[in-house]
Amino acid sequence: MSKRKKLKSNLAWSTTDRIVVQGHDLVDLIGNTSLGDFAFLELRGRLPTPAESAVFNAIAVTLVEHGLTPSAIAARLTYFGAPESLQGAVAAGILGMGSRFGGSIEEAAQTLQEALASAAPDADLRDIARDIVARHQRAKQPIAGLGHPIHKPADPRTARLFAIAADNGLSGRHIELMQLISEEASAAYGRDLPVNATGAIGAIIGELDFPWQVGRGLAVIARAIGLVAHIQEELAEPLAGEIWSRVDEEASEHNRTD
Amino acid sequence: MSKRKKLKSNLAWSTTDRIVVQGHDLVDLIGNTSLGDFAFLELRGRLPTPAESAVFNAIAVTLVEHGLTPSAIAARLTYFGAPESLQGAVAAGILGMGSRFGGSIEEAAQTLQEALASAAPDADLRDIARDIVARHQRAKQPIAGLGHPIHKPADPRTARLFAIAADNGLSGRHIELMQLISEEASAAYGRDLPVNATGAIGAIIGELDFPWQVGRGLAVIARAIGLVAHIQEELAEPLAGEIWSRVDEEASEHNRTD
Amino acid sequence: MSKRKKLKSNLAWSTTDRIVVQGHDLVDLIGNTSLGDFAFLELRGRLPTPAESAVFNAIAVTLVEHGLTPSAIAARLTYFGAPESLQGAVAAGILGMGSRFGGSIEEAAQTLQEALASAAPDADLRDIARDIVARHQRAKQPIAGLGHPIHKPADPRTARLFAIAADNGLSGRHIELMQLISEEASAAYGRDLPVNATGAIGAIIGELDFPWQVGRGLAVIARAIGLVAHIQEELAEPLAGEIWSRVDEEASEHNRTD
Amino acid sequence: MSKRKKLKSNLAWSTTDRIVVQGHDLVDLIGNTSLGDFAFLELRGRLPTPAESAVFNAIAVTLVEHGLTPSAIAARLTYFGAPESLQGAVAAGILGMGSRFGGSIEEAAQTLQEALASAAPDADLRDIARDIVARHQRAKQPIAGLGHPIHKPADPRTARLFAIAADNGLSGRHIELMQLISEEASAAYGRDLPVNATGAIGAIIGELDFPWQVGRGLAVIARAIGLVAHIQEELAEPLAGEIWSRVDEEASEHNRTD
Repeated sequence: MSKRKKLKSNLAWSTTDRIVVQGHDLVDLIGNTSLGDFAFLELRGRLPTPAESAVFNAIAVTLVEHGLTPSAIAARLTYFGAPESLQGAVAAGILGMGSRFGGSIEEAAQTLQEALASAAPDADLRDIARDIVARHQRAKQPIAGLGHPIHKPADPRTARLFAIAADNGLSGRHIELMQLISEEASAAYGRDLPVNATGAIGAIIGELDFPWQVGRGLAVIARAIGLVAHIQEELAEPLAGEIWSRVDEEASEHNRTD
Repeated sequence: MSKRKKLKSNLAWSTTDRIVVQGHDLVDLIGNTSLGDFAFLELRGRLPTPAESAVFNAIAVTLVEHGLTPSAIAARLTYFGAPESLQGAVAAGILGMGSRFGGSIEEAAQTLQEALASAAPDADLRDIARDIVARHQRAKQPIAGLGHPIHKPADPRTARLFAIAADNGLSGRHIELMQLISEEASAAYGRDLPVNATGAIGAIIGELDFPWQVGRGLAVIARAIGLVAHIQEELAEPLAGEIWSRVDEEASEHNRTD
Repeated sequence: MSKRKKLKSNLAWSTTDRIVVQGHDLVDLIGNTSLGDFAFLELRGRLPTPAESAVFNAIAVTLVEHGLTPSAIAARLTYFGAPESLQGAVAAGILGMGSRFGGSIEEAAQTLQEALASAAPDADLRDIARDIVARHQRAKQPIAGLGHPIHKPADPRTARLFAIAADNGLSGRHIELMQLISEEASAAYGRDLPVNATGAIGAIIGELDFPWQVGRGLAVIARAIGLVAHIQEELAEPLAGEIWSRVDEEASEHNRTD
Repeated sequence: MSKRKKLKSNLAWSTTDRIVVQGHDLVDLIGNTSLGDFAFLELRGRLPTPAESAVFNAIAVTLVEHGLTPSAIAARLTYFGAPESLQGAVAAGILGMGSRFGGSIEEAAQTLQEALASAAPDADLRDIARDIVARHQRAKQPIAGLGHPIHKPADPRTARLFAIAADNGLSGRHIELMQLISEEASAAYGRDLPVNATGAIGAIIGELDFPWQVGRGLAVIARAIGLVAHIQEELAEPLAGEIWSRVDEEASEHNRTD
């Protein structure tokens, strides 16, 4: 068996008496680090500053729970068929955190990060915003992070998240650009297109210097918590059987009578 | 479509201007609640006290990262074949958090909770411990939560976790019983069988009044964080291709020559 | 890196000009072996006889499709959130093929195989059936493979499957015992408890000399086909969004008004 | 709960005495239809002709088994951690059948189908092939379905699959175009780039009138069979623990000494 490449991970390693995570002794972190800060350490390789901690925990908390989403329903239906495997039900729910759900954070973050990376330091952000809107309009593509099907006039999470970023000195060019995109898009499309929670989180990820690809990962991390809570609720008050019966009965009825 | 049962979740619901999670306005929680405390809220229906928060975050942090576990390797191999789906790679890793890994927390917690639930309030815990050890010895079953293949003489996380529980006034009968089981088992088997991290967490879950079934869920929640970090590392320093090549080459070699 | 054990698989290996599967040259099998027979080869290490092929394909076909099951709905909801990952949607559906669904085949097969393995060669099968029924009755456990919530008076697949087994000379003691269990259970419980499709398949697995553990695997293999078809139908006529809306709207309504 | 849309599936429905799959009575299909033909029925809505059956079963068989692939290793590692959930281990393996593995069939099929759909009926296929090669060369993108890292000079499955298609009167413009692309690419890049198995299957899917999107689904269906066989082998001759130990030991060694 030839070895062409080292197998090595910097995330963790252990000896008989130590476990080292990202260069820290795990035993020193236990009791001194919250779960959210530990997640930051895992993803960034260092512990957050107090300001980063406040902002990172705020966006993570925002993503945990949204009630009976497709993902939560899928997890409950899976648990119904395989109650021996809580991990399988959570995995099924996580599998739905893809391009259509977790993806809009990623997409908003990518748009902002790529525009700012290629812009001159003194570039006018409103010009950049106008360009982004025009480009999407020409391609007939929606702009990620704007508008909301339920929350009107605006997603209540956005103002809160932007305020926390500002209070912690982490409101910079990504957030400013996201807000300008919202203004320009509202003008261009002739209707109110406020920044929604995924747009706000996509912008804040940039302020925290996370690459845009981490967006979907954050959604997965946060939603795993929510999915375990849904399985726990399903144990006490099962919904899956009722959802299945209703769907199956209606479909059977149509097939018999059509 | 007849409706025999209400479809309802107490976890979350929303109106045009509010999102309510476990009875709290989400916007009030964002910025005031850490991710770990929010997870406690999701699972218990109320926010933790400061003592509960310290202990809950400590056990969650302990479960996040263990380096190149079977679960982390499976996630990396999955990402190698399907890089378009970070959620699929994390799901593959979570699927390995079953009876053999996440399960020992569950099992330790169940043993302790069932023994204490059926015991008289003034029962002698050492007698209970001795009974549990004898029962496992007769059935030739290992006792969950004792010993460790790598960490000698003792798992360094255990003492830390028990100290945090004690410092926060949450060291009660579950922890005491777990420690007595370790003493009695060491005597019965004639070798040192200290409480390991999963045994400590199984005991602490009881002190926090969580049902033992939550044990596996906690492992899944924590490990989801670690798995996202492994995928991020895999992106920068891929290992999956190398692991595959080595396994495949050795297996092909044996098949050709055997 | 010490090697304590060989890494080797007998399933397949290749050289520059050959791929060998279970000892056969793959190129010789392609075009001469149907998918069902190839599955038999994979699981048993040899190609089926014509009689085994007829019976194996019959049970596999029976398990492919059952309309809008919890598993199919979960796959469709997952695809809704992550359309970039067909494999993720199928995986989510497969995750529901656990103890409650795929499991009854396994359980029926296990009951029959264990009873026949421990019985004397000349033991009276009716006595064994009576014992099995009595044991389940005492333990207040349902007998796997009997009765059906929808198909009355009897599951139409059972007679067909047993006829195919008989026509191919593969109706032996497992099937006879399953039928006697049905008779004895009907007598003991005072209501008609005919063998259902999973009971029939559980018995036939025994006639084909498959270990009972393969039962769940067969269900997974067959249902993977059905799940891909459901995703294809979802692409053309999406249902997931409608199912989600209805569940979410009703749950929101209850939360607002309760 | 307002209903905006019918919930209905054409795949299957049942009454008390019938199960109807794609318009056929399931009981009539059991015993008369092989698993491969039933899969064709599920995906196409009608049973295959004998020629279609021969070709469809041939490509499905080709995709079942490739030994210790990343997908098979991930399934085995997952089973190691969660032996209670065979379905979870198979799901983990399926999750790796994404853009990098199952995807090349899809991509080859898409290239061919789109080129032929937009070409005039009397267009010269060699011109089309030359265009496709030139387009990929300019974009510095590899052409899906050509070349093989192990099989030299050519993938042995390709000639066999093309011969079966020809013998069954199903060798048309998709296969011809794929072969011309191989010739033109070999000329353009100055090295032998023969059609590999995924290229051949991508072309044959077109001959069978399947949309290119079915390519990944076929790979998932076939590989599910192989993955169940790997789990069965893992039960008898476990490899996962050994793979894990070797990876973990080497990584720990590097971390301690670097």
